[in-house]
Amino acid sequence: MNGKVKIGLMGLGTVGTGVVRLVESFQEDLFKQTGSSLEISRILIKNPDKKRSIYVHPDKLTTNPDDLIYDDEIEVVIEVMGGIEPARTYILEAFENGKHVVTANKDLLAAHGDELLRKAAEKGCDLFYEASVAGGIPILKTVVEGFSSDRITQIMGIVNGTTNYILTKMTQEGLPFEQVLREAQELGYAEPDPTSDVEGLDAARKMAILATLGFHVGMKWDDVACKGISEVTQEDIRYGKQLGYTMKLIGIAKRDDDCVEVSVEPTFVANSHPIANVNDVFNAVYVYGEAVGETMFYGPGAGELPTATAVLSDLVTVVKNSKLGINGREMAFPYHEKRLKSPEQIFAKYFVRLIVQDESGVLARIAKLMAENEISLEKVLQEPYGKEDAELIIVTHSASKASIERFLEEVQEFHIVKELKSCYRVEGGE
Amino acid sequence: MNGKVKIGLMGLGTVGTGVVRLVESFQEDLFKQTGSSLEISRILIKNPDKKRSIYVHPDKLTTNPDDLIYDDEIEVVIEVMGGIEPARTYILEAFENGKHVVTANKDLLAAHGDELLRKAAEKGCDLFYEASVAGGIPILKTVVEGFSSDRITQIMGIVNGTTNYILTKMTQEGLPFEQVLREAQELGYAEPDPTSDVEGLDAARKMAILATLGFHVGMKWDDVACKGISEVTQEDIRYGKQLGYTMKLIGIAKRDDDCVEVSVEPTFVANSHPIANVNDVFNAVYVYGEAVGETMFYGPGAGELPTATAVLSDLVTVVKNSKLGINGREMAFPYHEKRLKSPEQIFAKYFVRLIVQDESGVLARIAKLMAENEISLEKVLQEPYGKEDAELIIVTHSASKASIERFLEEVQEFHIVKELKSCYRVEGGE
Repeated sequence: MNGKVKIGLMGLGTVGTGVVRLVESFQEDLFKQTGSSLEISRILIKNPDKKRSIYVHPDKLTTNPDDLIYDDEIEVVIEVMGGIEPARTYILEAFENGKHVVTANKDLLAAHGDELLRKAAEKGCDLFYEASVAGGIPILKTVVEGFSSDRITQIMGIVNGTTNYILTKMTQEGLPFEQVLREAQELGYAEPDPTSDVEGLDAARKMAILATLGFHVGMKWDDVACKGISEVTQEDIRYGKQLGYTMKLIGIAKRDDDCVEVSVEPTFVANSHPIANVNDVFNAVYVYGEAVGETMFYGPGAGELPTATAVLSDLVTVVKNSKLGINGREMAFPYHEKRLKSPEQIFAKYFVRLIVQDESGVLARIAKLMAENEISLEKVLQEPYGKEDAELIIVTHSASKASIERFLEEVQEFHIVKELKSCYRVEGGE
Repeated sequence: MNGKVKIGLMGLGTVGTGVVRLVESFQEDLFKQTGSSLEISRILIKNPDKKRSIYVHPDKLTTNPDDLIYDDEIEVVIEVMGGIEPARTYILEAFENGKHVVTANKDLLAAHGDELLRKAAEKGCDLFYEASVAGGIPILKTVVEGFSSDRITQIMGIVNGTTNYILTKMTQEGLPFEQVLREAQELGYAEPDPTSDVEGLDAARKMAILATLGFHVGMKWDDVACKGISEVTQEDIRYGKQLGYTMKLIGIAKRDDDCVEVSVEPTFVANSHPIANVNDVFNAVYVYGEAVGETMFYGPGAGELPTATAVLSDLVTVVKNSKLGINGREMAFPYHEKRLKSPEQIFAKYFVRLIVQDESGVLARIAKLMAENEISLEKVLQEPYGKEDAELIIVTHSASKASIERFLEEVQEFHIVKELKSCYRVEGGE
């Protein structure tokens, strides 16, 4: 790349507009960082008649993607259209024409990241997507650069601000899920249709992207075992508190030997763990590397400015790489074969809450069933429940997911067990 | 810089040895990142006869610094000798000869950072020193790059692992300072002479470096108001717990308008603040930027491997910058004039613990004296103390340091006040 680098922008919505503004405002700073001046020379839009909040010279606007993809002067394409198609096709064509790509497209990365990364590597192009995960935290850059000579074994994250806000309010104010969700919607922290956030799908996409990068394995969003927070109750949260835990929607990506597990589910985190204190709309990603040990990055999860800033930061990296002649080399190419752990290989501590008949020998029978399933107890809490029953809360030592599932099935066949109220994964603590 | 970059290394102690090892082990990775192969061509040592844990070709070793400083082929000097002199002179001479410098020398940076940064800028050279602060957290890089288009207004850090370990044990196990210090010394977490850690001097040096970088002001370590942890008692910690606070040795750098305050002192942190949960030898740096908002970086504070890794990461940046032709541009040149806040301009909440005569009207008199000093109360806790006295704990709303100091002086003149037990700054919470 020479003194001037030309950029094609696909999409001129909120993020696209932010990118145009930042490139204009920070010309001098960008030159200081890259030694080049950057110019957005073409912008792909859908509707040329739409009113826009910024002025862009009409000659730059086009509705034809080929005006970007086949323009030899354009060296980098920024894709902020969103959606799977046609974004996927455009990006693949851009690689075919030797262009580097920066995208903020979480859905696309989580569904086709593997394919895109392979094509980029094949063509010696860069593909960066910092803005797709936890906008305000430069986590992807850190995973790639900070751990480049380390082996990451675990990534644990609060990567969805909406659900973290809801759980924080439920915990601090003792309000039920539905009420807090309504309030979050009124404040604009939750969408009118909150499914993608509340059911953990958004978090699952981000965890798939993080796991792909951290473990060099092509993980897709449907490889992620995913459970949302809509069934979390005040009782669960209260009992958790009593036992020293905070309820969080936690994404976990772990690898042991060459097998990987990735999940998103409501989880009790020991209060002593740094991630337990991450509240409101904040995000945090905790990374464990064999050499470096524990690190955590905390910051705002999203927002227009952080997202556009993340895109710009990727753009700077691409331009630098190009001058250094190292494009396509820093890529987290998913070179390991994907091998997902079976439920027998996934180990964790679990919190189980049961309503049982309050009679002697109940705990003994349940404990025996746990032992038969190779589950041992760490903590037990029993409280009266109504006149004749008791509420029994058990925290196990580390056990396989398969054992826990078997135990939960079998324990419900006991006539002394009235109801299985809940079961959550437990993280942190000794 | 061409295909091969030659490096001079000053010092072959623990960190120097680590650097030599890493450069050898990660040749391929370094090439991938920089597009160049890196070679340590000369090493400055004190004693040629000393036995070393790695083999280095004897021709590379020298006791004459000029063999590095005046070698035209050497483009980067890594200084890991430690100490102020002769390191300072060597680095200045290296800049005179157009060489870039990477150093891990915290003492030197905190005492002469301003001078070194100015000389580097004058000569168009890079000076990087990530390893001097919180080895395992790439905090300097983040402050420079992540906040390059933002304005940092506050940096708050736990930047000394030894004192954090001691305070964590005191808090969790209820043991007195002296005992925990002895144990820490036995475990190797504290030095035989623990003064630099325990009295906050090490933390003060790191905060001076962070403030210089974050605020573009030439801060020295003796600009930092510094108090250690040797007088923190179990009673303080217990009362703090009762009020929802955790005791930490906190470095604070704040700017308002163009005035700056930097301090290191034992501080009560509200349990809801993410930094309150940073325990054991871990470090964390919390940065508040006007655009990005709150971010925090958490990780291991020191260690041989993290320190050498940080040196290598700086080295990669220097080599990249050189190829991009942007050396000396990313520097945090201290271009603002240094204006320290007066005690009238430093505002915080304070925790004050007094032993008072247990008679009616005592609290009223003390509250009146506070009001006269423009201090208002947020929390009060009173408990019996012996037969005739009471222990009075007050947490104030935000007040100036000058007011608090005046109040503490005047309150001790009251005959009803038997003893001023302690006074700590309070951070976090509403």
